[in-house]
Amino acid sequence: MNSFGTHFRLTTYGESHGSAIGGVIDGCPAGMSLDLTSIKHHLARRRGDGIDGVTSRQEPDNVEFLSGIYEGRTLGTPIAFVIKNEDCRSEDYAELKDWCRPGHADYTYIARFGVRDPRGGGRASGRETAARVVAGSIARQILSEKNIAIDAHAILPDHIDTGETYGGIVSCQINGVPKGFGNPIFDKLNARLAHSMMSIPSAIGFEMGIGFQAAQMTGHQFVDQWNDTPSPLTRTNHCGGIQGGISNGMPISFRTAFHAVPTQQGETACLNVSGEQKKISIKGRHDHCHVRRLPVIVESMAALVLVDFFLEHHE
Amino acid sequence: MNSFGTHFRLTTYGESHGSAIGGVIDGCPAGMSLDLTSIKHHLARRRGDGIDGVTSRQEPDNVEFLSGIYEGRTLGTPIAFVIKNEDCRSEDYAELKDWCRPGHADYTYIARFGVRDPRGGGRASGRETAARVVAGSIARQILSEKNIAIDAHAILPDHIDTGETYGGIVSCQINGVPKGFGNPIFDKLNARLAHSMMSIPSAIGFEMGIGFQAAQMTGHQFVDQWNDTPSPLTRTNHCGGIQGGISNGMPISFRTAFHAVPTQQGETACLNVSGEQKKISIKGRHDHCHVRRLPVIVESMAALVLVDFFLEHHE
Amino acid sequence: MNSFGTHFRLTTYGESHGSAIGGVIDGCPAGMSLDLTSIKHHLARRRGDGIDGVTSRQEPDNVEFLSGIYEGRTLGTPIAFVIKNEDCRSEDYAELKDWCRPGHADYTYIARFGVRDPRGGGRASGRETAARVVAGSIARQILSEKNIAIDAHAILPDHIDTGETYGGIVSCQINGVPKGFGNPIFDKLNARLAHSMMSIPSAIGFEMGIGFQAAQMTGHQFVDQWNDTPSPLTRTNHCGGIQGGISNGMPISFRTAFHAVPTQQGETACLNVSGEQKKISIKGRHDHCHVRRLPVIVESMAALVLVDFFLEHHE
Amino acid sequence: MNSFGTHFRLTTYGESHGSAIGGVIDGCPAGMSLDLTSIKHHLARRRGDGIDGVTSRQEPDNVEFLSGIYEGRTLGTPIAFVIKNEDCRSEDYAELKDWCRPGHADYTYIARFGVRDPRGGGRASGRETAARVVAGSIARQILSEKNIAIDAHAILPDHIDTGETYGGIVSCQINGVPKGFGNPIFDKLNARLAHSMMSIPSAIGFEMGIGFQAAQMTGHQFVDQWNDTPSPLTRTNHCGGIQGGISNGMPISFRTAFHAVPTQQGETACLNVSGEQKKISIKGRHDHCHVRRLPVIVESMAALVLVDFFLEHHE
Repeated sequence: MNSFGTHFRLTTYGESHGSAIGGVIDGCPAGMSLDLTSIKHHLARRRGDGIDGVTSRQEPDNVEFLSGIYEGRTLGTPIAFVIKNEDCRSEDYAELKDWCRPGHADYTYIARFGVRDPRGGGRASGRETAARVVAGSIARQILSEKNIAIDAHAILPDHIDTGETYGGIVSCQINGVPKGFGNPIFDKLNARLAHSMMSIPSAIGFEMGIGFQAAQMTGHQFVDQWNDTPSPLTRTNHCGGIQGGISNGMPISFRTAFHAVPTQQGETACLNVSGEQKKISIKGRHDHCHVRRLPVIVESMAALVLVDFFLEHHE
Repeated sequence: MNSFGTHFRLTTYGESHGSAIGGVIDGCPAGMSLDLTSIKHHLARRRGDGIDGVTSRQEPDNVEFLSGIYEGRTLGTPIAFVIKNEDCRSEDYAELKDWCRPGHADYTYIARFGVRDPRGGGRASGRETAARVVAGSIARQILSEKNIAIDAHAILPDHIDTGETYGGIVSCQINGVPKGFGNPIFDKLNARLAHSMMSIPSAIGFEMGIGFQAAQMTGHQFVDQWNDTPSPLTRTNHCGGIQGGISNGMPISFRTAFHAVPTQQGETACLNVSGEQKKISIKGRHDHCHVRRLPVIVESMAALVLVDFFLEHHE
Repeated sequence: MNSFGTHFRLTTYGESHGSAIGGVIDGCPAGMSLDLTSIKHHLARRRGDGIDGVTSRQEPDNVEFLSGIYEGRTLGTPIAFVIKNEDCRSEDYAELKDWCRPGHADYTYIARFGVRDPRGGGRASGRETAARVVAGSIARQILSEKNIAIDAHAILPDHIDTGETYGGIVSCQINGVPKGFGNPIFDKLNARLAHSMMSIPSAIGFEMGIGFQAAQMTGHQFVDQWNDTPSPLTRTNHCGGIQGGISNGMPISFRTAFHAVPTQQGETACLNVSGEQKKISIKGRHDHCHVRRLPVIVESMAALVLVDFFLEHHE
Repeated sequence: MNSFGTHFRLTTYGESHGSAIGGVIDGCPAGMSLDLTSIKHHLARRRGDGIDGVTSRQEPDNVEFLSGIYEGRTLGTPIAFVIKNEDCRSEDYAELKDWCRPGHADYTYIARFGVRDPRGGGRASGRETAARVVAGSIARQILSEKNIAIDAHAILPDHIDTGETYGGIVSCQINGVPKGFGNPIFDKLNARLAHSMMSIPSAIGFEMGIGFQAAQMTGHQFVDQWNDTPSPLTRTNHCGGIQGGISNGMPISFRTAFHAVPTQQGETACLNVSGEQKKISIKGRHDHCHVRRLPVIVESMAALVLVDFFLEHHE
């Protein structure tokens, strides 16, 4: 449940305000020299360092590697890593203990487990994605040696209300994926990408290539005709580089829609398990523009999907 | 690769113009009396029987069960089933043997496997979905005993050009799913639904609840506030009934976008592995409105996702 | 539950006296020309054709392939196959319907599923192993191209009582496995071999190399010292060719112990779900020396284990 | 590769002389109050505290839990734990860096990964089993609430040479497993037990019930006849409580054979990747009677197998 991938498998753990979050990577090839600078860079992107309006934690996301590395190189054994939670103002959440905020996973976690950690969203917090970024950074290092590059950017709403949280879209393009990547039927590359993207907190939509626009098109309008020259393969790329679940060598492009962080400043009507409601003044840190921090998470999940196929296909 | 599900696992097999297609269902509970009438009904929906403009095969999709049933009841052992391919005009495809049509999976299957069955799309044909409908019908039978109902319908483009194939959207609503269904992090119910929908041939987009519209909303606009009465739980259902990957008891709603069947009547420029192009007149059966046949496939995949969680959660 | 393997996955189905048994192989490489003569040869070995004292069914185990093959070559898509059950004297088992024979799986299947097919052992019958032999034969074909050869033989008890069923040991040696095959920790090559062997009906013990004898040895006696010449690698092969779960390039050797078929001719006290006992005269076909038919099943399971590692390791 | 179990999944990590070993448990039920005293007790058994002749590390195996627990109770989210390696005399292994000891996994790890951690066996060290004992202790806690008790003991060789390492057998009996536990065909309870036992370092043989003795018996001698009274179910328990892969309610009994630790004091001929040999005086800690420390590991692996079926079967 908390693992992703088959050949390059990430298992994550940790609650937002517990002692630590982290993960274990199983299946990372042996003999790699990990690029720690790149890992730090991508973690800083996730924290939103330098982005206006992002309220990052004051803690630096120091990653400690516990295993799988000897004399600076990977051993082919599991790579365990830990990020300590140092800046946990748990007292912000004391009043929320028995109450479920609207729009959050508070209610559904209690329904699923009968219990939850109310501090900062617990396991459902976006903080868990830091572990994905660490693993995604290592996956990208493997892919970049094969000249595969992943690049995502945020598309914000046209009009941003001051003081409000808001949603947005993250558009991602992957260059360099060879033709023949993926699988037919249930394990399609686009199906796995959709799965990975919808696993990101606040994701609410996914589309390949031109996506929902295609629903209004005829076959003539949609089809990507062969090009007269070998490269690029097709004149258009409406399908986003994948046909029948398998890459065709064109750039892979997709978009993921995210809803706003549902936390609202001020008094909010919360619900408890007895069905009672109570107005609570929500504290804690909440991003007004969390979408700006999402591109690196989108890129990380895409990297995990691709590296898994890469190792499966032996390339 | 050709299996779907963990606790109720469907493995499908078969090429469009091979001797048969079919599947094996592993994990179906023992003691069930299979509703064969329902299976036939859903297969007829997939064939588009009675739908104007749908060119169905003339064969009746007779399902033969080979195992897992004794004296009319399931044994808890694998249920294997076969649907013979009787109406295979393979000669329609002779000219296509070494040529890849644009917009189809011809090119990518060769890139992936080095070989393909060129007759009617082979494994990539929509015919494979008949096996999904058989398994989905059995899954629905299990779910309906728990009062879970799945209902999808097609939304066609505003203007349909005569003689053209076209895309569309299938909207699906699931009623009766208890709160607490699903998992956190990577194995979210919405992520599995996205995966299952994007595995349907010609799927190109997926969204939960209000989906891409949410990207333009503020947190205040998007959040589903608690209702004053216990049922329904929330005043709106923008999120589509799932929060943090787990159902909240509200109806689960999602939409899947499909592109048009890329086959075009008349001469089409095709590509071979040497990079040469040739104009070929495409024959064979091609749906102008395949979207009308898709709701039952959407429902079937949703049923496979739900029954898997259902058995996992022991309900 | 009814699948074996990760990269070359066999799913089997079928009851002994249902309409058919068979399987689906997922992950078989594309472009292979299946050696049908070899498959028939190994199925005949399993039937015990020509072995004195083996009462084989009169049916020829005709294998019909339904998918995954085009113009004689594998497509890389699932290979489904069916073996019809033609010689089913179900009436032999009518009296057993509500009664559990001692030593068989009758009692435990009812405990597990609440229902069973009483005819000829149903799903628990040794007949299911025919599907393993089909898949194992295909796996061996892949391995033999890499010069890996699997050879097993039966070791019968010293004194065989006339008219009695009896147990025995199957000893197996695999030559040609390169060093470096397998995995550390939980997924050791020897652990997977043990798993595969203990999954064969009537298996009751497994040992690598000198096995249980090693429990009486000191470290000095047991250790396989390096040889003075490069080949063979070690002077002895007490460990059976695997260290730390990974092959060292020496022949892989192991032995599997099997108990006798528990069926006894004549009157046998049987038990029903109410705890009552009744003497029933057991009919049906029962092997006196089923151990002689087991080497090909042992070889087939070993082949399935090895081909899975082979595809995982990209060789 | 480094994970065990499906519903209660343990992933372990760590090298013997790296900074830490540990694991992540995914699937542990929510709401449990972990019995830390029991975990410490079983870890002390594994260390061999108080056993004559066992050279334990001086470090206390302090387990630190990083996640999945809130206010003393499990959350249903992953439980990550760390055991720091504090007493690592890495210098003992400096001379071994490029050399492979006979009988160890040194040679095969290099063959598999191209690199290894030479300090104390690295990942192949028995130290990894401490993580199994932690998870096994938690699994036992779940099982004990259902009155399932697991008890193993060591059977040492008849004559122990002074100063020598030696092998032995661990016999294990499990009481209280209900009838109907397990699965048919490939996923048999006995097959999973065999897999789990053969995954323990130095395991070389496994048998259920009377095991290899059964190979010398007739059907009459072997079969466990129904008892005249309901409990115990059968007069004998030759099969060890499992038939057709499924428990029959009798005690489950099995034995695992272990070879001696291959390390020899004094000069030992070692091999490098160039095929050269060199005599090296092996240092480090080595157990003369590691078999005495194995019962708790056998029990832990059995508990992991059983709890997985327990959660699968919803009991």
